[in-house]
Amino acid sequence: MPNTNTTVNASTYLSGLDCLRRIEATDKPSIIDAMSEIAPDLARLAVSFVYGEIYSRPNLSLKDRQLITVAALAALGNARPQLKFHIAGALNVGCSAAEIIELMMHLVVYAGFPAGLNGVFAAKEVFKDRGLMFDPAPQTSPAQNERFSMGWNALSRIDGHAGEQVIAALADVAPDLGRFIIEFGFGDIYTRPGMNLLQRELITVGALTALGTATPQLKVHVHGLLNVGGTREQLIEAVIHVAAYAGFPAAINAMFAAKEVLDERESEPQSAAGSSPPSASR
Amino acid sequence: MPNTNTTVNASTYLSGLDCLRRIEATDKPSIIDAMSEIAPDLARLAVSFVYGEIYSRPNLSLKDRQLITVAALAALGNARPQLKFHIAGALNVGCSAAEIIELMMHLVVYAGFPAGLNGVFAAKEVFKDRGLMFDPAPQTSPAQNERFSMGWNALSRIDGHAGEQVIAALADVAPDLGRFIIEFGFGDIYTRPGMNLLQRELITVGALTALGTATPQLKVHVHGLLNVGGTREQLIEAVIHVAAYAGFPAAINAMFAAKEVLDERESEPQSAAGSSPPSASR
Amino acid sequence: MPNTNTTVNASTYLSGLDCLRRIEATDKPSIIDAMSEIAPDLARLAVSFVYGEIYSRPNLSLKDRQLITVAALAALGNARPQLKFHIAGALNVGCSAAEIIELMMHLVVYAGFPAGLNGVFAAKEVFKDRGLMFDPAPQTSPAQNERFSMGWNALSRIDGHAGEQVIAALADVAPDLGRFIIEFGFGDIYTRPGMNLLQRELITVGALTALGTATPQLKVHVHGLLNVGGTREQLIEAVIHVAAYAGFPAAINAMFAAKEVLDERESEPQSAAGSSPPSASR
Repeated sequence: MPNTNTTVNASTYLSGLDCLRRIEATDKPSIIDAMSEIAPDLARLAVSFVYGEIYSRPNLSLKDRQLITVAALAALGNARPQLKFHIAGALNVGCSAAEIIELMMHLVVYAGFPAGLNGVFAAKEVFKDRGLMFDPAPQTSPAQNERFSMGWNALSRIDGHAGEQVIAALADVAPDLGRFIIEFGFGDIYTRPGMNLLQRELITVGALTALGTATPQLKVHVHGLLNVGGTREQLIEAVIHVAAYAGFPAAINAMFAAKEVLDERESEPQSAAGSSPPSASR
Repeated sequence: MPNTNTTVNASTYLSGLDCLRRIEATDKPSIIDAMSEIAPDLARLAVSFVYGEIYSRPNLSLKDRQLITVAALAALGNARPQLKFHIAGALNVGCSAAEIIELMMHLVVYAGFPAGLNGVFAAKEVFKDRGLMFDPAPQTSPAQNERFSMGWNALSRIDGHAGEQVIAALADVAPDLGRFIIEFGFGDIYTRPGMNLLQRELITVGALTALGTATPQLKVHVHGLLNVGGTREQLIEAVIHVAAYAGFPAAINAMFAAKEVLDERESEPQSAAGSSPPSASR
Repeated sequence: MPNTNTTVNASTYLSGLDCLRRIEATDKPSIIDAMSEIAPDLARLAVSFVYGEIYSRPNLSLKDRQLITVAALAALGNARPQLKFHIAGALNVGCSAAEIIELMMHLVVYAGFPAGLNGVFAAKEVFKDRGLMFDPAPQTSPAQNERFSMGWNALSRIDGHAGEQVIAALADVAPDLGRFIIEFGFGDIYTRPGMNLLQRELITVGALTALGTATPQLKVHVHGLLNVGGTREQLIEAVIHVAAYAGFPAAINAMFAAKEVLDERESEPQSAAGSSPPSASR
C-alpha cells in the first residue's frame, strides 16, 4: 500500500504558497483573492495540493513543470485563463519567450494548428502585458529534398522501433500520412533548435497525457522520452504533474500506458539506434 | 427492437417548452429568439428532444438532471455559454449556490483544477448577475495524519474493490499517484459536506461520460454510484441525459461500459464493505 | 516505405498561399501578419504544410475540405477563432449559409447540443460580419408516428448492419437510447434536406476523427461513408485532412480504425441493404 509515512505535513500550505509566489512572481497569489468570496477552499487546496505537494516533488525542475503545464493546457485548448497564467509563470521561473513559442509550434504536431495558433496568441498577449520584446529568429526548414531523410533520422533516433512501426503500419492504407509525420512532424518540427529533445519529449508526454485520446502515441513517446535520455522518474513525475491540470483519470490512464512500456523495455531492452527507412515497411 | 409504442406524441414540444421555462425561469426561453433568424429548427429540436423527451424521463429529478448537466459542461470546459445557462437553471430548479460550488470542487478530481476554477468563475458571474449573495463556509480538510485513513475509508466504501484495485495497480509504478487519489480525491474532496455521496457519484458519472476519455474510471464509478445507493435506473438515465450535452457517441460508449459493470455485478454480487488498506496492494 | 519521390517541391509555399488566398478571399492572408512578430515560422509551416500539401491533395474538393474543417473545429469546440475563420472560408469556396447551419445541426448528434449551438452562434457572427442575409427555411421533422420508421430506414441504409448492431446491443440495457438514436439522430436529422448523405458522412468522419473519443462510432460511419457512395480515397483524405486541425494522433488513430473497417469489408463485402427493425435485436 502507499507509504503513509510520506503524507504531507502541516507546512505544505506554506511551501505551496512559496512555490506559487515564485510562479506568479507576487507576494499575494491572485487565486486567493479570486476565490475568497466564493470558494476559498478551492484556493486552499490548489495551493496545498498542486503547489505544495505536486510541485515540491523531485526529478523535474520548476521550469520543466511549467513547460509541461503550458503544453497540457495548450493541448486541451479549453482553459485560456490558466494557459496565460502559466505562460507568465513559465517566464517567471526561467523559460524564455522563444521556448514558449517553440513549445506551441511543437504542439501543432500533437494537437493541431488551432491549438498551436491559439497558444501563440495567448503567449503574444502575455508578452505584450509584460512589455516583453520578442524578436523571433525564423528558422529555415530542411530543404525539401532533405525533409524526409532528416525526419526519418529524427524519428528513428527519438521514437526508435515504436515510431518506425507506426509508419510501417500506415504503409498499406495511407502512406502519405506516414510521410507527413516524417517530413512535417520530425523533419520540420523536431529538427528545430530552441528546445532540446528531452524538453520536446517531456511536453509531448504532458500534452498527450492531458488529451487522453492518444494512448498509442503516448506509448511511443514514453519510448521517446527514455530514448533521448529522460529517466523513468522524470516520466512518472510528468504524468503525475498533469493530474493537477487534466484530472486524475488522465494521469491514471497515462500511467498505466507508461507502465506497459516500462515493463516491455525491462523485459527486452530497446535499441533506439536508427534504422534505414526501408526497414520501416518490413 | 426498441419499443415503438413509446415514441413521443405531438405534445412533446409543449411539455419541453414547459420544462425549459422552469429551468430558465422565463415564459420566453431565450434559445427560441436566439435561433429564430438562423436555425429555428435547432431550437425546435432542442425543446422537443432535450427538454420534451430526455428531461421528461423518470428516475432523475430535475435538480439531479441540472447537476449532471453542469458537471458535464464544466468537465468539457468548451461550452461556457451553456455552462452559465445551466448553472442558472440549476439554481432555478432548487440547487443551492453551495451545491454548485461544491460540484465544481468535486470536478477538480476528474477534470483538473482549471475545469473547477473556470466552473467557479462561471458560477461567480451567474451569482453576481442574480445579485445572489453567497457566503461560503470554508471546510477544514482532514488533519494531515487523517487524510489517508479517511480517504481510504471513503474510497473503500464508495468504489469498493474496483477502487482498491486501481491503487494496488499503481503501487509498483507510481504509488504516490495512488496516495494522492486517496488523500486528495477521497480524503480532501469526498469527505466534504455539501453534497451527498449519491449526488457526487451522479455528477462523476455525468462528467466522465461527457469527457469520453476515462472509461476505466467511469466503470469504477458505476460501481460507486450503485455502492452508495444509486439504482440501475438512475445510472442509465444519467448516461442517456449526457447524450444531449456531449453527443450520442459519448452516451453510447458510456452505456456499454456501464453495461459491463452491471453484468459483472449480476454474475458476482459486489461487496462494498471497506477493506483495510493492506489488502489494496495484494 | 513512403515514396520519397512524392515529397513536396519548392513551390509548395506558393501553392499553399494561393489556396489560403482563395479560402480567406484576400491577397494578404491574415495569419502572416498575425504571426510576423512572434512566430513567423508557424505561419510559414501552416501555409506550406496545411494549404500547400494537405489541401492540394486530390479526392476531396476545396468545399468538401472546408466542410470537414468546420465540422472538426465545431465538434472540438475549443478553437473559436479558427472555427469562424473556416466558416467564412467555407462560404468563400462555395458552401452556402444553409449548408453551414445544416452542418451544425448534424453535429448535435455527434458532439451534443452545445457544440451545435455554439457553432450556429459562430456562423451567425460570420454571416453578420459579411452582411449575409440568411433566411432559414424551417423543415418539419417527420410526424411522430413516422420518426422511428423513417429513422430506422435511414440507419439501415447508411450504417447498415454496423448501425443495427449498435441498436441491438443497447436493447437489454438502454433500449430508449437506441430509440433516440433512431428517432432523433436518423429520423429528425439525417432525413433533413440541405446536405446530401455523402456530405453528412464526410463531416461525421471529420468530427469523430477530431474528437478522438468515439472510435466505435467512427468505424460505424466509415461503413456509412462507403455505404452512401463515398470512396476509400475520400475516406482516407478526410482523415488525413483532420491531422491539420486536431493533430496527428487523432488522424493516426482514426486511420487505423478506418483500416480495420476497410480490411473487414474486403474480406466480407458488406450489404447496406436495409433490414427490417426486428432483425436489429436478434
